[in-house]
Amino acid sequence: MEESSSSSSQKKIEEEVSRLAELAKELQDSASSFISNSTTEEQSLRQRALAIDSNLKKLHSSVQTGAIDRKQAHKVRARCILSDGDGASFLPNKSHGRFLKMFLGPINVRASRKDVQLKVKEEYNSYRDRTAFLFLLFPSTLLLLRSWVWNGCFPALPVQLYQAWLLFLYTSLALRENILRVNGSDIRSWWICHHYCAMVMALVSLTWEIKGQPDCSHMQSDVQLFLLWAVMQGVAMLLQNRYQRQRLYTRIALGKAKRMDVVWGETAGVEGQLLLLCPILFVLQGFEAYIGLLLLKNSLVGVVSEWQVVVCGILLVVMAVGNFANTVQTLISKSRI
Amino acid sequence: MEESSSSSSQKKIEEEVSRLAELAKELQDSASSFISNSTTEEQSLRQRALAIDSNLKKLHSSVQTGAIDRKQAHKVRARCILSDGDGASFLPNKSHGRFLKMFLGPINVRASRKDVQLKVKEEYNSYRDRTAFLFLLFPSTLLLLRSWVWNGCFPALPVQLYQAWLLFLYTSLALRENILRVNGSDIRSWWICHHYCAMVMALVSLTWEIKGQPDCSHMQSDVQLFLLWAVMQGVAMLLQNRYQRQRLYTRIALGKAKRMDVVWGETAGVEGQLLLLCPILFVLQGFEAYIGLLLLKNSLVGVVSEWQVVVCGILLVVMAVGNFANTVQTLISKSRI
Ligand SMILES: CC(C)(COP(=O)(O)OP(=O)(O)OC[C@H]1O[C@@H](n2cnc3c(N)ncnc32)[C@H](O)[C@@H]1OP(=O)(O)O)[C@@H](O)C(=O)NCCC(=O)NCCS
Ligand SMILES: CC(C)(COP(=O)(O)OP(=O)(O)OC[C@H]1O[C@@H](n2cnc3c(N)ncnc32)[C@H](O)[C@@H]1OP(=O)(O)O)[C@@H](O)C(=O)NCCC(=O)NCCS
Repeated sequence: MEESSSSSSQKKIEEEVSRLAELAKELQDSASSFISNSTTEEQSLRQRALAIDSNLKKLHSSVQTGAIDRKQAHKVRARCILSDGDGASFLPNKSHGRFLKMFLGPINVRASRKDVQLKVKEEYNSYRDRTAFLFLLFPSTLLLLRSWVWNGCFPALPVQLYQAWLLFLYTSLALRENILRVNGSDIRSWWICHHYCAMVMALVSLTWEIKGQPDCSHMQSDVQLFLLWAVMQGVAMLLQNRYQRQRLYTRIALGKAKRMDVVWGETAGVEGQLLLLCPILFVLQGFEAYIGLLLLKNSLVGVVSEWQVVVCGILLVVMAVGNFANTVQTLISKSRI
Repeated sequence: MEESSSSSSQKKIEEEVSRLAELAKELQDSASSFISNSTTEEQSLRQRALAIDSNLKKLHSSVQTGAIDRKQAHKVRARCILSDGDGASFLPNKSHGRFLKMFLGPINVRASRKDVQLKVKEEYNSYRDRTAFLFLLFPSTLLLLRSWVWNGCFPALPVQLYQAWLLFLYTSLALRENILRVNGSDIRSWWICHHYCAMVMALVSLTWEIKGQPDCSHMQSDVQLFLLWAVMQGVAMLLQNRYQRQRLYTRIALGKAKRMDVVWGETAGVEGQLLLLCPILFVLQGFEAYIGLLLLKNSLVGVVSEWQVVVCGILLVVMAVGNFANTVQTLISKSRI
């Protein structure tokens, strides 16, 4: 009795098994034909996109040499359709960059659909918002606790935790920006480079010995400067986020949400905001350079003579100069169009 | 004269412009229809894959409850077709994991084609090979220089450079393994977790003050232990790479190159190698625990009483125990099939 019921259930299972195997095989077949078809189709789209793009470039250079009015509406439109629309997914990838390869290997991080690309961009913006908040909170808490609770002396652990967080933050920002770039963002390479510098600085500051008593307020003046720089960065980040979010809104309002790069002055309302933002940025950049020079001075007069201080000082000055130069260049290229 | 030649060239350019705009528009149209078609088709494949997979799971659980012989050839084949073939690309993504999200944001890192997935796996293996080499070279050089050149005292900078490299290395390994996992690798979550622990350890060791004279050989005994552990890790990594590469070769020879997970004992030749590898791994794991305990002892008897030492000690013991448990579990689950 038991034997026969088990053998009938065995039979049922066997049937189910062969049915599933059949289904799996069918799925397998349609999946591979789908993949091979779409690969071929993709290839041909890729070639067409490439051909158009190279013609556009040729045209562009002949326009540059002055043979013709620069504001050719048609040309701009062709270029736009190519760089915004779905066609753009089939332009050859911007090169991956060594940074991404180093961390991730040769994995493809390009989204082929524009709405996904935009989602990545939006997530990046909201990530920046969240971190800008922490960016202000973290170092200012440390600075406040120093004078209220710690009697002018930083204990090592909280500062190091903060520095480790900075290292993580800059690494993730640099990774995300590289990914945005692969996805067609026009971000200047300096801003990414700036995050590489900040990563190095966070790493170096981690190895920086935080001296305790005696005389810590003297010994720790460089740590304090570092934290002041961080507070300042937080302010810059908040302002910048506010501006860039508004820029995105304007673009969406103009129905240009799909464009990763703004070529000409249709975001005029935001441009006004930019003129307001820039002076503040310049002040902050000046302050950044000042802190860098202070650190260098400290290390020269021998208050603290660790190599870490020298490196951080140099990095700060480099970042300040680079930020300044690139902000100015952005302004110039915006005003030109 | 000049006027007319410039206007004729202008005309030519205008024609070219409108031709390109036309082409771009066509491309745009076919690209969007391609994308929307393939999205629909993908969706339907995804649904079919899902349905088959859930039926397979049901079947599997009824098999588990003992109603039927476990080694049903058909069932295994259906399962295999689904998990190896192109069909597998349409199974729902394994969840991304918070680690990847933290660093990269919500970007898709899954390759839809199996050959790309395999390429990623191969690149991961060769990356491990390259690093295993450095892994041995770096700390042993430091240890050798210490006794030959540095008179028993480590200078801080080279050790810190090494620790920074370790931090980078473990971060990138953890990222890559998470990516492999999303791409269908069956890697146990412990091995990834192990790399998280190692990341924390590298970070902590960076903040670890490397004391110089006087009496550095005494003060630096923990740094030395740390480097010894690293050498050992290098050995383990080399052995493991050798075995896993051979495993991949065997699979390719068996025509199973497309399978990311080996379900039953067809790689018997390599299994023998595993039995040879495991005792060595166990010895190394014992050594790892020993070093962890030594560090803890050092910090207790007060030779060095920094918190960094305690944390590293605990992490080493945790890693040793976890590695041991997971190696044993791997062996058990392999021998069961
Ligand atoms: C000057 C500035 C406001 C210009 O911003 P902008 O108008 O967006 O500049 P662009 O039009 O050239 O931007 C092109 C792209 O780069 C991105 N981008 C610009 N600056 C960026 C930055 N600092 N970080 C990340 N992305 C940036 C933009 O979002 C845009 O992306 P998209 O193509 O995906 O839409 C901005 O670069 C900035 O704030 N820089 C100063 C930062 C600084 O100095 N900080 C430190 C102070 S101590
Ligand atoms: C025990 C061991 C040899 C088993 O390896 P294995 O036979 O490949 O194990 P599995 O069959 O379970 O592997 C499943 C998957 O995980 C991967 N994997 C296994 N162990 C891994 C590890 N330690 N790191 C990264 N990936 C690993 C395999 O490559 C395989 O990937 P795939 O599905 O893409 O093909 C291996 O896990 C190992 O070397 N562990 C010990 C490591 C150790 O203890 N190191 C420290 C010593 S101090």
